[in-house]
Amino acid sequence: MRQTSFREFHCSLARALDVVGDWWAPLIVRDLFIGLSRFDELVEDLGISRNLLTDRLKTLVDGGIVETTRYSDHVRRVDYSLTKSGRELATIFMALTAWGDRWQTPPDGPPIRFRHRDHRCQPTVSCSTCGEKIDGGDVSFRPGPGGRVAPGTQLVGARITKPSATASRHTEP
Amino acid sequence: MRQTSFREFHCSLARALDVVGDWWAPLIVRDLFIGLSRFDELVEDLGISRNLLTDRLKTLVDGGIVETTRYSDHVRRVDYSLTKSGRELATIFMALTAWGDRWQTPPDGPPIRFRHRDHRCQPTVSCSTCGEKIDGGDVSFRPGPGGRVAPGTQLVGARITKPSATASRHTEP
Repeated sequence: MRQTSFREFHCSLARALDVVGDWWAPLIVRDLFIGLSRFDELVEDLGISRNLLTDRLKTLVDGGIVETTRYSDHVRRVDYSLTKSGRELATIFMALTAWGDRWQTPPDGPPIRFRHRDHRCQPTVSCSTCGEKIDGGDVSFRPGPGGRVAPGTQLVGARITKPSATASRHTEP
Repeated sequence: MRQTSFREFHCSLARALDVVGDWWAPLIVRDLFIGLSRFDELVEDLGISRNLLTDRLKTLVDGGIVETTRYSDHVRRVDYSLTKSGRELATIFMALTAWGDRWQTPPDGPPIRFRHRDHRCQPTVSCSTCGEKIDGGDVSFRPGPGGRVAPGTQLVGARITKPSATASRHTEP
């Protein structure tokens, strides 16, 4: 199905998508996060074919997102669970779920509510430095050490080196 | 290419993926967020075919993520930009980019650095109520008004109604 591998793209978003950028992978991560752990549970929950699930789980294991634990001597009897990387990824999918609640209008309201510790929670993308919610208009970009003009960044690689590269296209300080 | 539409799934993550869950859409959103706005710029930056880009832009416009502004009388001369929904989505992709920086190891270091206002920033998923970073182990789930056993949630729909449904599988308060 896949036309292009993003693995060679010099962009961490593209590299992230290379591991999780298909329609099933985020739902598998969601299910493991909620507490499913068996192959057959995932098949039943998602209605995914066994071949496709085998393939997707292998990609997630190879990508360091999912790990397996044998629960019987039979080599194929394993529990699947998220690694630290996978749990961190799951929190980003929580934010994407909340975005879907707000903007893609589930017909009967949000299917799931998140709780953080003992309180209700909207997963929100915020700034690690000041803690403020990031709303998109107050963000700008600088090249990092791996930034360059390369496949998938033929123009933006140059664009972010210019001081005008802000999401809102205001002049930067 | 697509085997399954997630549009009928009772899960806002699935519904979100139905609009943005292909490999190109997040990169298109990234490029518009950074400041590209023309069809030809996107083609050049991403190396995407014109047909595929036309198709993906249509999905993003139909999904309320991208809007167009005509810049000449010629009907096809339009600028593309993100809507409010699209900018909010872009901040989630920023968090996914930062995850890729941490866990998918770009060979020469992060290609891009984010700035929020006047300071460096790691986009982080945090709790809207207490502001704390959500690390995955401290999250639990409750059914929302739209929660049910349905395609794509055959098991988790029931699972989240049980008090044991926590990411860390600890007993909940």
